[in-house]
Amino acid sequence: MKISELSDRSGLPVQTIKYYIREGLLPKGTATAATRAEYDGRHLHRLRLIKALREVGDLPIASVQQIVAAVDDDAVALHLLLGKAQYALGPRAEPQPEDSGWRAARQDVDAVIAELGWRVLPDAPARDLLAQAFAALRGLGLPIVLRDLRPYIEAAELIADHEVAGLLVDEDRERAVQTAIATNVLYERVLLALRRMAQENASTRRFDLA
Amino acid sequence: MKISELSDRSGLPVQTIKYYIREGLLPKGTATAATRAEYDGRHLHRLRLIKALREVGDLPIASVQQIVAAVDDDAVALHLLLGKAQYALGPRAEPQPEDSGWRAARQDVDAVIAELGWRVLPDAPARDLLAQAFAALRGLGLPIVLRDLRPYIEAAELIADHEVAGLLVDEDRERAVQTAIATNVLYERVLLALRRMAQENASTRRFDLA
Repeated sequence: MKISELSDRSGLPVQTIKYYIREGLLPKGTATAATRAEYDGRHLHRLRLIKALREVGDLPIASVQQIVAAVDDDAVALHLLLGKAQYALGPRAEPQPEDSGWRAARQDVDAVIAELGWRVLPDAPARDLLAQAFAALRGLGLPIVLRDLRPYIEAAELIADHEVAGLLVDEDRERAVQTAIATNVLYERVLLALRRMAQENASTRRFDLA
Repeated sequence: MKISELSDRSGLPVQTIKYYIREGLLPKGTATAATRAEYDGRHLHRLRLIKALREVGDLPIASVQQIVAAVDDDAVALHLLLGKAQYALGPRAEPQPEDSGWRAARQDVDAVIAELGWRVLPDAPARDLLAQAFAALRGLGLPIVLRDLRPYIEAAELIADHEVAGLLVDEDRERAVQTAIATNVLYERVLLALRRMAQENASTRRFDLA
């Protein structure tokens, strides 16, 4: 297909497609004339992956480049590829001052994860994200105690077990990453919205018995 | 206390305090001279509330004005006050085109909430937020089915029941709103971070049996 058809079918402007080719995210088409190239289904699938990473995952170009390179590298096992994509997702913890409050929060996080026996790498970005929330709560005079954390831990395990069980591992790698990223980001919003409504429901039942 | 001491104790610059007074968020101090005013503990508590709404809740000034007005209006029951504060929190659904995809997603949300028997107002912002996620997933060829939603619903109920049970209703209204907003925002980050780590743990256990 021509670049104009690739644009129509991917929903991306021709200029954007050319930009992705320049950045090495998308292979060049097969030249058919000095100013023409032919594209195929592989280009379309790659563009759909890039679109999901950029538009749903909100990832910077550098992260997209890394993920695309890992997709193309069969030496990277699928679950490591999906993990790499998850690590690239925001939000990220803001850079932290090396003060004692931050160090204490990070140690608390590491202690909780060790206590749970969760297999999570020491440099998982979510450790810093959790430490940042711990430090902010402590700064507001609302320090976290393990008892308060229990329902969140239970909820996270419930959801993650469901999500990991549903991963389609025999799928095409490109499609698997695309689905995993979209699912991760969009179900995070689903969870957030459901929590807000469940709060309203629980509060209405508790305070407004009429 | 003088405005300089109020600034020290609240951690807010004098200029910011003056701005909040101009915007009607904070009452004026008691004039003690042409260019001096005296402030007391009520000013400090109000500033701490405003700070939590602005810095943790990331709310615009107009929303802070509405919440502060509701705090001062004893005719607004505490649980309605907390509900008002929760409705003011982002993220909000982007304005939606009145297309059939969006309408269908919103109807799906309303049907799910009705099916659950949750007491949630028809104009709760989280309904639109959930509809937006439904529409986005459908647009990616990953439509939500109720079976997939179950673990998220269960998780949301688990968390909300814990959170609403923990509300300190005999507390000062100002402090109750401050705590509720901070808790809502920061425990959302806690939940997000725990979900990411629970995913890594579940994935490692499933794929990497070594």
